[in-house]
Amino acid sequence: MGSIFGDIFRVATFGESHGMAIGCVIDGCPSGLALDVQDFVEDMARRAPGNSQYASKRKEPDNVEILSGVFEGMTTGAPIALLIYNRDQKSADYDDLARVFRAGHGDYTYIAKYGLRDHRGGGRASGRETSARVAAGVVAKKILAELGATATSHVAAIGRVEIADGEDFTQNKEAVAHLDDCIAAGDSIGSAVVCKINGLPTGIGVPVADKLSADLAKAMMSIGGAVGVEFGAGFASVARRGSENNDGFAWCDGKLVKTSNNAGGIMAGISDGAEIYMKIGFKPPSSIAMMQKTATIDGDNIEIAIKGRHDPVIAPRACAVVGAMAAIVVVNHVFGGLSDTMEKVKRLFVLG
Amino acid sequence: MGSIFGDIFRVATFGESHGMAIGCVIDGCPSGLALDVQDFVEDMARRAPGNSQYASKRKEPDNVEILSGVFEGMTTGAPIALLIYNRDQKSADYDDLARVFRAGHGDYTYIAKYGLRDHRGGGRASGRETSARVAAGVVAKKILAELGATATSHVAAIGRVEIADGEDFTQNKEAVAHLDDCIAAGDSIGSAVVCKINGLPTGIGVPVADKLSADLAKAMMSIGGAVGVEFGAGFASVARRGSENNDGFAWCDGKLVKTSNNAGGIMAGISDGAEIYMKIGFKPPSSIAMMQKTATIDGDNIEIAIKGRHDPVIAPRACAVVGAMAAIVVVNHVFGGLSDTMEKVKRLFVLG
Amino acid sequence: MGSIFGDIFRVATFGESHGMAIGCVIDGCPSGLALDVQDFVEDMARRAPGNSQYASKRKEPDNVEILSGVFEGMTTGAPIALLIYNRDQKSADYDDLARVFRAGHGDYTYIAKYGLRDHRGGGRASGRETSARVAAGVVAKKILAELGATATSHVAAIGRVEIADGEDFTQNKEAVAHLDDCIAAGDSIGSAVVCKINGLPTGIGVPVADKLSADLAKAMMSIGGAVGVEFGAGFASVARRGSENNDGFAWCDGKLVKTSNNAGGIMAGISDGAEIYMKIGFKPPSSIAMMQKTATIDGDNIEIAIKGRHDPVIAPRACAVVGAMAAIVVVNHVFGGLSDTMEKVKRLFVLG
Amino acid sequence: MGSIFGDIFRVATFGESHGMAIGCVIDGCPSGLALDVQDFVEDMARRAPGNSQYASKRKEPDNVEILSGVFEGMTTGAPIALLIYNRDQKSADYDDLARVFRAGHGDYTYIAKYGLRDHRGGGRASGRETSARVAAGVVAKKILAELGATATSHVAAIGRVEIADGEDFTQNKEAVAHLDDCIAAGDSIGSAVVCKINGLPTGIGVPVADKLSADLAKAMMSIGGAVGVEFGAGFASVARRGSENNDGFAWCDGKLVKTSNNAGGIMAGISDGAEIYMKIGFKPPSSIAMMQKTATIDGDNIEIAIKGRHDPVIAPRACAVVGAMAAIVVVNHVFGGLSDTMEKVKRLFVLG
Repeated sequence: MGSIFGDIFRVATFGESHGMAIGCVIDGCPSGLALDVQDFVEDMARRAPGNSQYASKRKEPDNVEILSGVFEGMTTGAPIALLIYNRDQKSADYDDLARVFRAGHGDYTYIAKYGLRDHRGGGRASGRETSARVAAGVVAKKILAELGATATSHVAAIGRVEIADGEDFTQNKEAVAHLDDCIAAGDSIGSAVVCKINGLPTGIGVPVADKLSADLAKAMMSIGGAVGVEFGAGFASVARRGSENNDGFAWCDGKLVKTSNNAGGIMAGISDGAEIYMKIGFKPPSSIAMMQKTATIDGDNIEIAIKGRHDPVIAPRACAVVGAMAAIVVVNHVFGGLSDTMEKVKRLFVLG
Repeated sequence: MGSIFGDIFRVATFGESHGMAIGCVIDGCPSGLALDVQDFVEDMARRAPGNSQYASKRKEPDNVEILSGVFEGMTTGAPIALLIYNRDQKSADYDDLARVFRAGHGDYTYIAKYGLRDHRGGGRASGRETSARVAAGVVAKKILAELGATATSHVAAIGRVEIADGEDFTQNKEAVAHLDDCIAAGDSIGSAVVCKINGLPTGIGVPVADKLSADLAKAMMSIGGAVGVEFGAGFASVARRGSENNDGFAWCDGKLVKTSNNAGGIMAGISDGAEIYMKIGFKPPSSIAMMQKTATIDGDNIEIAIKGRHDPVIAPRACAVVGAMAAIVVVNHVFGGLSDTMEKVKRLFVLG
Repeated sequence: MGSIFGDIFRVATFGESHGMAIGCVIDGCPSGLALDVQDFVEDMARRAPGNSQYASKRKEPDNVEILSGVFEGMTTGAPIALLIYNRDQKSADYDDLARVFRAGHGDYTYIAKYGLRDHRGGGRASGRETSARVAAGVVAKKILAELGATATSHVAAIGRVEIADGEDFTQNKEAVAHLDDCIAAGDSIGSAVVCKINGLPTGIGVPVADKLSADLAKAMMSIGGAVGVEFGAGFASVARRGSENNDGFAWCDGKLVKTSNNAGGIMAGISDGAEIYMKIGFKPPSSIAMMQKTATIDGDNIEIAIKGRHDPVIAPRACAVVGAMAAIVVVNHVFGGLSDTMEKVKRLFVLG
Repeated sequence: MGSIFGDIFRVATFGESHGMAIGCVIDGCPSGLALDVQDFVEDMARRAPGNSQYASKRKEPDNVEILSGVFEGMTTGAPIALLIYNRDQKSADYDDLARVFRAGHGDYTYIAKYGLRDHRGGGRASGRETSARVAAGVVAKKILAELGATATSHVAAIGRVEIADGEDFTQNKEAVAHLDDCIAAGDSIGSAVVCKINGLPTGIGVPVADKLSADLAKAMMSIGGAVGVEFGAGFASVARRGSENNDGFAWCDGKLVKTSNNAGGIMAGISDGAEIYMKIGFKPPSSIAMMQKTATIDGDNIEIAIKGRHDPVIAPRACAVVGAMAAIVVVNHVFGGLSDTMEKVKRLFVLG
């Protein structure tokens, strides 16, 4: 248990917010995938701070270096090590927090578990850790792309303001006003992200323990600040009757289709051919400029305002992480499914 | 990927609804735990059908046999095999469903994945599979009990009717009326379960990939019919500001306490000493007596009513499964945490 | 860590010598494999005691029951639980050994690790545990058979007497005389088994950590009594020069072949198309009828002769176990290799 | 399956001989271990080429950088990323080998598996890969040192010349002459390494699948060039009788001791308190300056002499790798054993 995602397509991440570097090792990537440092630019920028007025002002170019596993522009099947050097750290910002248990943060639980902690910028618990996931997700998304599948995500709520599918939250006046209010108050606000996976054939996933939905839920809840995850109609199904919630099937022009998608594209842990749809709730960021009561490791009850560069809302930057994690989980399940039937095994085996 | 839960405390389950037996093998249970077949009776009965008017009428005594790993009433450290023979199966009830993709069920996805399926009573996808989890959960809960910790659960909603903590839903007139309406209509209704883990010290869990919250979310979403999971304030945090949502700390009589528990007892993936609180949403059961449109494997669009003995609501019986899965996950994390610090490792190593 | 073999094709074993039953759960077997209880008869008999004058006289019919995972004669992709009830146990034979640390046995190390132990017939440490492996091996060998591959084994040495390939050791007069001498003296003798895997294409295995040779070595050393394992020319290569030991390649009639097989069919952890050849050494069984000095848990130094029905040599019965474990490892690697290249992944994915 | 060692103390390695860097990520190292770049110098030098006249002349300073997981000189419990930049690569040396299947090398099996390969200096299959293992082993050995345990190794044979325990092979005239002969002939020679683990208490390891001996055997066979591994008396036990091979027990001054150590310190997969003793055989290095027949990917049968800087014998440099791998395996088992008994679990849990 720790920092390694997956069983077959495995991603081992490392790095602290203000350490030398963040990165990951991907073990189990097939050979023959074209991969170049340019592939990482877009997604890394999407997650990077400083990319909008609604994100932390810290500047991180987040250039991904490929240390291994790629030869002449193609993956070789060997582990792919991706490295992102940390720059622009202002560790001094955090010195007076070394002995504080910040409200809403993992400072206290890290100390309880490990006895000591790297307090600089949140250390391992920083959102910066997710840059390694986004980098690994780029590789996973490229694999999915070759199979005709995509994992996309968008901001679905800024506080109480819901954002419609396809709408850019920065164009939503109510959301922007809501966010501006929070920022002006030195406060932060909760949010939500919707993630959609399309292009997957039916039959990806497994029953019982490692259901595709279960693994996706784990991946989503592993993102800092996530407070819940739901699939398809989600918690709305609690108030529904079976007759309205059940997804039926029908043959249309020789193809079997679902007549609704309340299940969100996964039935009994296995993809059903419809769009996989999930929503992840995020709490308001814990670092706020307002005064808050909390305690120190030395036994004092104090009031502090968190200085430094912090995000007022999680969803905009978390979108890139959500999509990356979804892609990592799906690739793992696609590979796991190649030995589903003797027919598949024999076919690949004979073809070599 | 498949039917094995956990890394250190591992539970491998097996069995189909109408096969010979259901069961599990627990690998990684410490020696020296008192264990007897009587330990299983209460939880098995709680999950068993036929235990109330709001559950399937199928009678399953669900006696658990201990095949291995226990000697003279104590676990030996060897794998514990638990076996529950299936009885009272009425497979004939399902014969005319062999070629039907029941609405809301995994019939279609199983066929898509495996090319064939055991259609009798849902086969591996049946809720009956969870009896093996409940049996394994009994062992996990006994381990937790020796550490002073508990995992409990209760029905939190029957359809739109919320059930308060400590309230028995069968005493709630509105809930009962709601449920009776559904049953009378040959329909089913959604529901929710709240699970609470108490008595855990601070520091259980890990950061990043295998967060305690992430592993719990996976375990919950692996239960048939689960549509979402949330921790603490959950999705309600989406509409909140940081200043109201942040859990502060305070020293009280020399002890550090949280001044609120919006996080639901887990911060940065690690238990924070407060009650772990999560809510799981369940869809209405898919098997209903009302006519529904769906399709067959042969290319026909049909209307069917599902005969046989089916639950009108999931939560009452799922409570036992939710508690069992929570206990399994926590035990796995407790064991994983024994090597958290060099000090712990040395202490145990020296003591032998 | 414990009693589960494999990553993708996983086998969780359980059971003690004199407990109720021995068995295993196979998770990750593809659907569509014909499987019947008759398939197990031959291999189970090969491992079973009482099958020759050179094996323990204990009678165990070792009937394998299939509890799950098979429907209408075909595997369904669900976990396959295999059960072998113990019969003919004479636990009373072992009562006076409850407090003895038998020379050469795991009695002491089990107590050191677990604090208590099931002493009856060696409990979990008994060779009887391997019957579950043989049962799982039958499934693995059936999978390999469909791919045109085999894992076979034969007795390669009885004490100092080497047995040639293809020779039945019971026809070798020197071996038989050697063995009869040991039996007459109430003693036991060491032995060796050769295992060959044929019909595998080039490219099965992985580099670095989980080399096919490394996983095979682990599997062989996990068999009770194994003292060493070597591949191809093995330890004989230590005294050789590179010019005589290197396996060259040559094109013959348009096919690439190895010009020798000192590597034993695996190069850099990956099968090279030649026969995989390994030899496993076994110590003489520790239970002998001669008087031996040893100690008790109570602090006494004693002399004892081990009564009961014991094998004078390991190899004859271990052959079935060696072949089973080899097959289990190879199947795991075959499945793991299905995602080796993007081309393979795409081909299977598209074909569905 | 791939390049990750271990279950709890996990080491994910990456890097090719002539890529940018070699390294590893260690997940599961406890907090509170003092760790500094200086700790790596001695072991890295021991493995490094150019450290004696009997090793490749390639110069690699092999400085280890710590990228994460260490704060103010102590491990934090977070993943430890270790990086070794490659320098002094002469890739051009390998250009004319790009299409050759070198005799005895993995060139062909890599192509068979992955369809393409990084041919420069052996790529991922190069012995250079082991530098990451040695770096990880330094961390494992430091953990063992705090527990009073050590993993050491020495050259045990140079070709047919055996080297006694405690003897430096470079002082053995026969070994040196043998080696000089091989070098003069442009040839290479086989060798062996003995590894000893001392200071471990009784009770480390597990029965059945993941026996300590089985995991050590896997780790040893995962080292490039290993051809076999044996424990204690090893293959010599094949020719022995039980009465001479059995390790008895005796109480001496109130302590239980083994009266011999033919088992090599592990009984039934669990450490027995005696020295763990194993021997690993290595083939002669495959890269030799003599002319050899082999084939190309283009269908040609050719003769080539391998130019460049190559080791004439494996054992001297492999010693560092053997000790590192042994330490990694033992630490993994030590951590796994912390939940062996309810008493241990409770003690740690209460103490926090």
